[in-house]
Amino acid sequence: MSRIVVSLGGNALGNNPQEQKELLKQVATPIVELIKEGHEVVIAHGNGPQVGMINLSFSESNSTPEMPFPECGAMSQGYIGYHLQNAIGNELAALNIDKSIASIVTQVIVDENDPAFNRPTKPIGSFYSKEDADKLSEKMGYRMIEDSGRGYRRVVPSPLPIDVKEKAIIKSLLEAKHIVITVGGGGIPVVVKGNTLVGVAAVIDKDNASAKLAELIDADMLVILTAVDNVYINFGKPNSEALGNVSIERLEELIAEKHFAEGSMLPKINATMAFAKNNKISVIASLNNAKEAFKLKAGTIIKG
Amino acid sequence: MSRIVVSLGGNALGNNPQEQKELLKQVATPIVELIKEGHEVVIAHGNGPQVGMINLSFSESNSTPEMPFPECGAMSQGYIGYHLQNAIGNELAALNIDKSIASIVTQVIVDENDPAFNRPTKPIGSFYSKEDADKLSEKMGYRMIEDSGRGYRRVVPSPLPIDVKEKAIIKSLLEAKHIVITVGGGGIPVVVKGNTLVGVAAVIDKDNASAKLAELIDADMLVILTAVDNVYINFGKPNSEALGNVSIERLEELIAEKHFAEGSMLPKINATMAFAKNNKISVIASLNNAKEAFKLKAGTIIKG
Repeated sequence: MSRIVVSLGGNALGNNPQEQKELLKQVATPIVELIKEGHEVVIAHGNGPQVGMINLSFSESNSTPEMPFPECGAMSQGYIGYHLQNAIGNELAALNIDKSIASIVTQVIVDENDPAFNRPTKPIGSFYSKEDADKLSEKMGYRMIEDSGRGYRRVVPSPLPIDVKEKAIIKSLLEAKHIVITVGGGGIPVVVKGNTLVGVAAVIDKDNASAKLAELIDADMLVILTAVDNVYINFGKPNSEALGNVSIERLEELIAEKHFAEGSMLPKINATMAFAKNNKISVIASLNNAKEAFKLKAGTIIKG
Repeated sequence: MSRIVVSLGGNALGNNPQEQKELLKQVATPIVELIKEGHEVVIAHGNGPQVGMINLSFSESNSTPEMPFPECGAMSQGYIGYHLQNAIGNELAALNIDKSIASIVTQVIVDENDPAFNRPTKPIGSFYSKEDADKLSEKMGYRMIEDSGRGYRRVVPSPLPIDVKEKAIIKSLLEAKHIVITVGGGGIPVVVKGNTLVGVAAVIDKDNASAKLAELIDADMLVILTAVDNVYINFGKPNSEALGNVSIERLEELIAEKHFAEGSMLPKINATMAFAKNNKISVIASLNNAKEAFKLKAGTIIKG
């Protein structure tokens, strides 16, 4: 029996509630198999497209207030969490497994002195013309940048997670043999101000949040399920090569050789290395290979 | 030490995220006092204005999908739950109380044969002209009615809660001495279809959901915090009278005499009576009097 954190990509969840519901039914199958084998399972998930959609709907609607980013993140945790716990709950019922699952609204603490706050890099929400971007920048104080030739977008900082406020809740639920969905979208980012936690407009990388969570709850394994089957070296080139079992030392060399894209595979690798280094196991695999990846028979496997 | 379910009205939470945050800071004070005295506390809350706002923003936005009602309810649980757990968490920290709190995304099971499904009565979302209402009715199959001379609104059924899917989660958290926020907005309404739970467009009365939850977790007391200090007889008339301690038998007489408004005070009274009848205590009081109400020194007190 192992304690396993499974981290799902927000991009794998479709573009609307109907698609999300269908896709999560497929996600439920391998996860419930893992539960059936007796493992303690915690599920984390991304929320990039979903939190963007929520933020956009409030921006475009004429009769509803502007919705700050931490609140949009909280809504996305409810929205994705509901579909995920419903799908997994239904699969558990179908297999007659008497287990409960719930999504926990989760705040993740970041350091207000994190250098990330000085250089916002994470694009969020919708695309704007230069003119509208300038207006928003003036009116709301948003930092706007040109994104991939598709227009201007707001960028927010992506600080590192330092603690999960609800970790005691998560631990108690695991001890009681329940299944937990948490740190959705990397968690609602909050900073410490005296005695209080205050939400900030930022996005915590969900893989970093998953790795921090895995460390805090003393998990044995972190599995990041993404769009690609493996981590690749020389990715996209004729001599590209999928990595199977790989050591932390080897990954450090490959990072130095700049094999992994910043803002894409590199943060996943950093997160998995950080967790694996204390004699743990990290896996990066595709959602399609989840079942095999849980058995360490697919994906890129990093043993510390 | 008692186990207490506190039910907050959604109308007390303001009209936008800034107002909600401020108002919940005030709510946190009496609740944390209750926690400080050693009671086990579960918090339920309404979501009428908030779920309407979320639904409306998706309806009005041109570039986001239509958002079904159960999903909007799930978002409102994240949104209100985040502010509530943050406010209470901050107050606990200020008083150096080492307790954890979290909001649980909660599905509440209703009977698909509930007669309420044949006569939708609960108005939700925005107001439309007769013409637009007819279009929506045709396009989406919504039932639209004229609401209080302000225009046409969609109405959905308000079925009775029969079970809380996540009750084992809630019990485990209470046993571990944590504080729980649950059944937000009456819970996400789901019906049983074979082995699965399926979300339905409906609104469960949050006081009924709170009473059902209080029964399921074997709470000692249910406190409904609302806009009025007490339940009144002859409400709004010169001979109006606030009720203090009142028996279930007396309430039954008063209901027969039609003292309580349907869709307003009557469902609260029915919910509190249903819970109190098994030798329990129910209280209906104003948010302003919460502190005294928790000590049975304010509000209308129903002992079974």
